[in-house]
Amino acid sequence: MTQITRLMPATPKDNAAPLAPRDGETVFPTIEGVRFAAVEAGVRYQGRLDVMLAELAPGSSVAGVFTRSSTRSAPVRMCEAHLATAAQTEAPFAILVNSGNSNAFTGRAGDESTDALAKAVAARMDCPVSHVFPASTGVIGERLPHDRIVAKIDQLADSLSAEAGARAAQAIMTTDTYVKGAWCEVEGMRIAGMAKGSGMIAPDMATMLVYIFTDAAVAQPVLQEILGELTDTTFNAITVDGDTSTSDTLILGATGRGGTPRIETRDDPRCALFEEALRAVMLDLSHQVVRDGEGATKFVEIAVTGAASNSSAHKVGMSIANSPLVKTAVAGEDPNWGRIVMAVGKSGEPADRDTLSIRFGNVLVAENGWVAESYREEAGAAIMREEDIAIRVDLGLGGGAATVWTCDLTHGYISINADYRS
Amino acid sequence: MTQITRLMPATPKDNAAPLAPRDGETVFPTIEGVRFAAVEAGVRYQGRLDVMLAELAPGSSVAGVFTRSSTRSAPVRMCEAHLATAAQTEAPFAILVNSGNSNAFTGRAGDESTDALAKAVAARMDCPVSHVFPASTGVIGERLPHDRIVAKIDQLADSLSAEAGARAAQAIMTTDTYVKGAWCEVEGMRIAGMAKGSGMIAPDMATMLVYIFTDAAVAQPVLQEILGELTDTTFNAITVDGDTSTSDTLILGATGRGGTPRIETRDDPRCALFEEALRAVMLDLSHQVVRDGEGATKFVEIAVTGAASNSSAHKVGMSIANSPLVKTAVAGEDPNWGRIVMAVGKSGEPADRDTLSIRFGNVLVAENGWVAESYREEAGAAIMREEDIAIRVDLGLGGGAATVWTCDLTHGYISINADYRS
Repeated sequence: MTQITRLMPATPKDNAAPLAPRDGETVFPTIEGVRFAAVEAGVRYQGRLDVMLAELAPGSSVAGVFTRSSTRSAPVRMCEAHLATAAQTEAPFAILVNSGNSNAFTGRAGDESTDALAKAVAARMDCPVSHVFPASTGVIGERLPHDRIVAKIDQLADSLSAEAGARAAQAIMTTDTYVKGAWCEVEGMRIAGMAKGSGMIAPDMATMLVYIFTDAAVAQPVLQEILGELTDTTFNAITVDGDTSTSDTLILGATGRGGTPRIETRDDPRCALFEEALRAVMLDLSHQVVRDGEGATKFVEIAVTGAASNSSAHKVGMSIANSPLVKTAVAGEDPNWGRIVMAVGKSGEPADRDTLSIRFGNVLVAENGWVAESYREEAGAAIMREEDIAIRVDLGLGGGAATVWTCDLTHGYISINADYRS
Repeated sequence: MTQITRLMPATPKDNAAPLAPRDGETVFPTIEGVRFAAVEAGVRYQGRLDVMLAELAPGSSVAGVFTRSSTRSAPVRMCEAHLATAAQTEAPFAILVNSGNSNAFTGRAGDESTDALAKAVAARMDCPVSHVFPASTGVIGERLPHDRIVAKIDQLADSLSAEAGARAAQAIMTTDTYVKGAWCEVEGMRIAGMAKGSGMIAPDMATMLVYIFTDAAVAQPVLQEILGELTDTTFNAITVDGDTSTSDTLILGATGRGGTPRIETRDDPRCALFEEALRAVMLDLSHQVVRDGEGATKFVEIAVTGAASNSSAHKVGMSIANSPLVKTAVAGEDPNWGRIVMAVGKSGEPADRDTLSIRFGNVLVAENGWVAESYREEAGAAIMREEDIAIRVDLGLGGGAATVWTCDLTHGYISINADYRS
């Protein structure tokens, strides 16, 4: 089990979510070959960090995964294009992120803003434009005032520092109630990531941005393959409200400056260690996002086993995790297993009433097509009063398994998303 | 346009939903060849009608559509089986419905209860068991006390009356805040339907039951084909919370006792008239269900055009209709078109930012990949303050179109589903 350390704010916010992590360090670790900078550019907010720049040393490998939304934003489209063409030339890579404005659904003007930013960064950092990976998060449908950011590029580049990771993590926050970071070290390879989500600014949606850095040396095709696989069981296995952002972006950069042997293929025994550590960082960050879910008071793990396939198990899990009836039952601390049965049934995946079993934590609730003989309502209710709740469903059909994570659906969610006009 | 009349309660409930219909008649129309009865059997509730029996005269055609849930209830499974084998023998058909207990996820005992009920009804009504269509709605996972219902079969059969439709519609209600019925007449053919949903009893889900009767004469295969098609654009085009009941049942019975010529094929010009009238009844009942959606304060029509296909348009529409972010925006009277863009994007269906247009009512909000030049926030906000709201999305890709209906997501929904323990 990989030991994960979390990033904690130096001065916790008063409105931090009830499920916010309770321990960690206030300093983001240094990663050989990575430098950060953050400034106040006044994109939308005043008096707070809202632009971050990260630099990866020449020779780094960069991998990425992005939202599958068909209405994805201009920066996402640029990242996809750059990922396809970015060669490991002897030039640095740059990540530029602003909060306050997502530059999504801004028509041709959006592409122009993204182009202007990427060109300004490339010129200042002395790298090809294809080495720049931009992201924007915040209001959608409003023109990005990119001049304000361009005006800060020199200041950002001048202040790049290996120690500024925590400031960078702060700069990408929107209405997150706490800063999100997680890291670990295995066999001399350090992996550290930061994330933002799932706070929201009207009229925006819960954009998720994730940046992970490692000093390991990993060939780019290997890095991309691993990242894609691990995303399925981490960031693609969480849901707050089933809605998908137009801007979700996950970038992984490996500098190779840590002095450990280069991983060229997945057969390398060090690759498995690297994967396990990377998965631990990704999983922890993804859980931090759920724990900051709007209005969340419960963290729910849904483990589905015995499915026809892993993919089928994932769909059943997501059907449960996205069911408003299940999520409100959890909010009400109601061990309402009937709603789990309903959510399994509506998933469209193979399931059989008579082979299905349901557990809350380790309490067997239902089996053989009915409530379990041993089940007592008080036992289920006790599980539901916990802050972290496990729901286990075995379909009794095959070897497919998947675990997903979500939070409850509360008055807080409605208040955040309905009560205030944008 | 078919003229629809609605059923209204003789004494409206104090807690009737804000969107409850405001006009109609308190008497359900008679349909030649159909008789109803309703009793208090004390299945779960005391002091209210909770079992209804409907009889269709010998020679009737019966069609049905049911939930696709893989965990569907024992009565649903029996109806499916009976529909496959029910011949037009010279015997009546019977529909038996209880509220208070859904007999879902009750294992083998559930099948035994359903068998016992069907046999008791068949014996008393002098029809084959395959002519009995049972349904149960209410708590799931608790054994149905079917003896209490069996004990009332004689009383039900003895009191069958053509005039008791309104009582029958009352008996199938659970936590519906108003009784639901709609009817019309075209070319001498009368069509009248009743529905229940989407109130809920913990630990139950929003079961929808619909029974429609006509005195038209329609060959069974034609009736079934029409019913299946019309369901796609009516009951399968509504959503309150995206959750699917284990018990959803829609039965359509045509007695052929109205004296109008028998419809043997869909080429019969009378068939188109019948279809149009039937669709009007189904659409009105489906809207009544949405208007009684838990916590609903807004009725929302989402019309998608310009899609790659009708099916693609339906999926985009449902993606918008089920989006918690869209539904909370509607609750907050927020003309938040960014969330519509998001919901289109996450649907997984073909869509192009630059060909997409969005209208609130007749107000053009977005086009050409950005907010429309003519759009003023006040115009969108004015639409959102209405009780009935139309959202129109044109994808600009093809000729596919679909319309779906939903309600908003409010604190009321959370209160109903989370605040009270079952």
